[in-house]
Amino acid sequence: MQNFNTLIYAPWIIPVIPENQILENHCLAIHQGRIVDCLPRAHAEVRYQNAHLIELTQHALIPGLVNTHTHSPMSLLRGLADDLPLMEWLEGYIWPAESKWVSETFVRDGALLAIAEMLRGGITCFNDMYFFPEIVAQVAAKVGMRAVIGMIVIDFPSSWAKTSEDYIRKGLELNDQYRAHPLIKTAFAPHAPYTVSDGPLKQVATLAKELNIPVHMHLHETAEEVNRGLAQYGVRPLERLQRLGLLSSQLLAVHMTQLTDQEIQTLAASSAHVIHCPESNLKLASGFCPVAKLYQAGVNIALGTDGAASNNDLDMFVEMRLAALLAKALAGDASAIPANQALRMATLNGAKALGLEQEIGSLEIGKVADIVAVNLGELETQPLYDPTSQLVYTAGRDRVSDVWIAGQQVLKKRQFTTLDESLILSQTQAWAERIQEARKPI
Amino acid sequence: MQNFNTLIYAPWIIPVIPENQILENHCLAIHQGRIVDCLPRAHAEVRYQNAHLIELTQHALIPGLVNTHTHSPMSLLRGLADDLPLMEWLEGYIWPAESKWVSETFVRDGALLAIAEMLRGGITCFNDMYFFPEIVAQVAAKVGMRAVIGMIVIDFPSSWAKTSEDYIRKGLELNDQYRAHPLIKTAFAPHAPYTVSDGPLKQVATLAKELNIPVHMHLHETAEEVNRGLAQYGVRPLERLQRLGLLSSQLLAVHMTQLTDQEIQTLAASSAHVIHCPESNLKLASGFCPVAKLYQAGVNIALGTDGAASNNDLDMFVEMRLAALLAKALAGDASAIPANQALRMATLNGAKALGLEQEIGSLEIGKVADIVAVNLGELETQPLYDPTSQLVYTAGRDRVSDVWIAGQQVLKKRQFTTLDESLILSQTQAWAERIQEARKPI
Repeated sequence: MQNFNTLIYAPWIIPVIPENQILENHCLAIHQGRIVDCLPRAHAEVRYQNAHLIELTQHALIPGLVNTHTHSPMSLLRGLADDLPLMEWLEGYIWPAESKWVSETFVRDGALLAIAEMLRGGITCFNDMYFFPEIVAQVAAKVGMRAVIGMIVIDFPSSWAKTSEDYIRKGLELNDQYRAHPLIKTAFAPHAPYTVSDGPLKQVATLAKELNIPVHMHLHETAEEVNRGLAQYGVRPLERLQRLGLLSSQLLAVHMTQLTDQEIQTLAASSAHVIHCPESNLKLASGFCPVAKLYQAGVNIALGTDGAASNNDLDMFVEMRLAALLAKALAGDASAIPANQALRMATLNGAKALGLEQEIGSLEIGKVADIVAVNLGELETQPLYDPTSQLVYTAGRDRVSDVWIAGQQVLKKRQFTTLDESLILSQTQAWAERIQEARKPI
Repeated sequence: MQNFNTLIYAPWIIPVIPENQILENHCLAIHQGRIVDCLPRAHAEVRYQNAHLIELTQHALIPGLVNTHTHSPMSLLRGLADDLPLMEWLEGYIWPAESKWVSETFVRDGALLAIAEMLRGGITCFNDMYFFPEIVAQVAAKVGMRAVIGMIVIDFPSSWAKTSEDYIRKGLELNDQYRAHPLIKTAFAPHAPYTVSDGPLKQVATLAKELNIPVHMHLHETAEEVNRGLAQYGVRPLERLQRLGLLSSQLLAVHMTQLTDQEIQTLAASSAHVIHCPESNLKLASGFCPVAKLYQAGVNIALGTDGAASNNDLDMFVEMRLAALLAKALAGDASAIPANQALRMATLNGAKALGLEQEIGSLEIGKVADIVAVNLGELETQPLYDPTSQLVYTAGRDRVSDVWIAGQQVLKKRQFTTLDESLILSQTQAWAERIQEARKPI
């Protein structure tokens, strides 16, 4: 924490709140990790004469992107199996690979790779669901990355826990450990309706209310899931969760490609959040989340990359653009989800879903300084008529130049300040060789 | 043209033909602009001892990408108007802007910007449709870019030509001028069924057969187009073209989001090519091209970016990935259009549509050396289990490092060798200021 002020100047600041506003030639003033001012450059240089000035001459500043659904350690399985439907991909490839490889070391190295990729792509907060969550929390805290760590619950045993009681107990220990941490929060993460039975789900519902923390869960990802659920429980998964007391403003319902109009109304009435993962849904042919309808019903929609094994990257610029584009095509309305709404889904809506909207998600005075600078000066992003449109429809994550989390600069001219890039690369390649070798037929 | 050989080494060569093959630790040997050999590195260093060796240690070599539909000068209008449906976007914003601004200079500067963007994104050939095509041809030839230049035909007058006869006459002059050019070819480019009447279309059909050159046309882009056509002509546009003699292996039918099963069979029987522009179709909410069905029917499908004003970039990596992803979701089948098919659509299928498949589209001995090197060594593209999957589902165009067209290296470690980047930037920004200024209310 610095005791002096930092001023960040950029030709464009897109604060998200106030909506539809672009501040030209302004500075953000940062003090002790928070945004303390936002004002025209000329005024800033008078008011903060002793501040350290960071001058970005062709950049837009945006709030750090919030990746509201991922499985960070799965980055080590990126591209291991492609062009397969969800259940075949899970049961034939991913679960066997996980049962063979997942360990503390796998999770540590995978989370580190994922965090590095996310940081360099402008993501400053991620909502994770995986085994060994305490390791992901450790890695994120050490690097200075903001994270909501899922206390995973699943009916089957893993190398991390054996029974649902075991999962919940270990999760609660984690929650206890990070209760006062400035960067790390926790959420319950029951995996999916088809992998968690009623008992542990009821327990999660009770505990989540007591502790006032979010519940992060795959839901209505595919038609098959809904049909299985209907056959087993007599109701669709969303209704089952409602009966179990899980449908509330604490629920992050991930995917939601299968929704009736009635269910959309139910979701809206409950204030539950939909986490839309467009690229994963397309790649696994899961279906289309009805984003424009959800938006019209007033549901809060945030975005996630899903894990790198089903995406195959952790790129929120792609998700943001795809969310805007798919919503238009699906609604048959090119004005559906305009650029500023897509940016809001990738920032403030994610913060809101995670219960962090008082702290992050927009560049407002008083909020924590989670800030991303995007260079719009190269010919790929010229000419420039509208910075928000350029950001959503033209820029890629390779245009991210600088990233701050809670005021700490973690990426500086695309170089990491808290990570050893070559170490990550060599660890990753060692894993790839090991995993590839074991796949070869004898 | 060099008289000595060049050897390009890379750990992976993805030649497209033979299909599903990845050559590890091979070299391509280049002589006088053509691929003369493809062999393991150890052999290459013996056989071509005096060759100039270019060593790429963490790259994949792929055929240059073929952008089979664009309007290159429109790059100057990138992001001018977004989140609008096709007809409102065209009639309310794009056509007025074009009628105000389009000139030789606009086309020259816009084409140069577009070509620079395309080269740095691994595109080595583009199929263009715009006014002042002779200027686009000049710019491409000067830069060393391969292009098929559309001889545009449209019923209404422009700053380039007044009547359809005028358009056709000027087009034929262009065709004459470039008949023997190694990089520049021509195609007829009647704009769309709703902007070209029967007379000029019949003429185009006759001339295209006589000269044996492709016909490049927007077709069945939106439901509105099909309905307008049906109302005006009593048949759907595809059937109208068939009656006018345009439905043949020379036709590049661009967009094709509105297709009955019968029309898919008709297309397949005619050997016409479908040019799929997924990002443009989504952004304008035009509809979904039924790619998996077309593929199963045996139709040749190639990819295009469309112009930067409706995309908003000229990024074939995005189109390639989106084509694979959308096809899966639309077909409800995650195995539809696997990675290798998407790459083929972005390379060889485009070459085939343009009648250039004997020259470009794959890294085969005897073909012209249009080659792209993609760096897969950074952490965003690691670990690496399958180079083709990584290329399609993970890599972005920012991973393109080096590009050769007809053996000439036009991009070297991301630096242009035949273009002045800073001049392009300053020209582009001058246009942006002029165009932006004129939009402001008085």
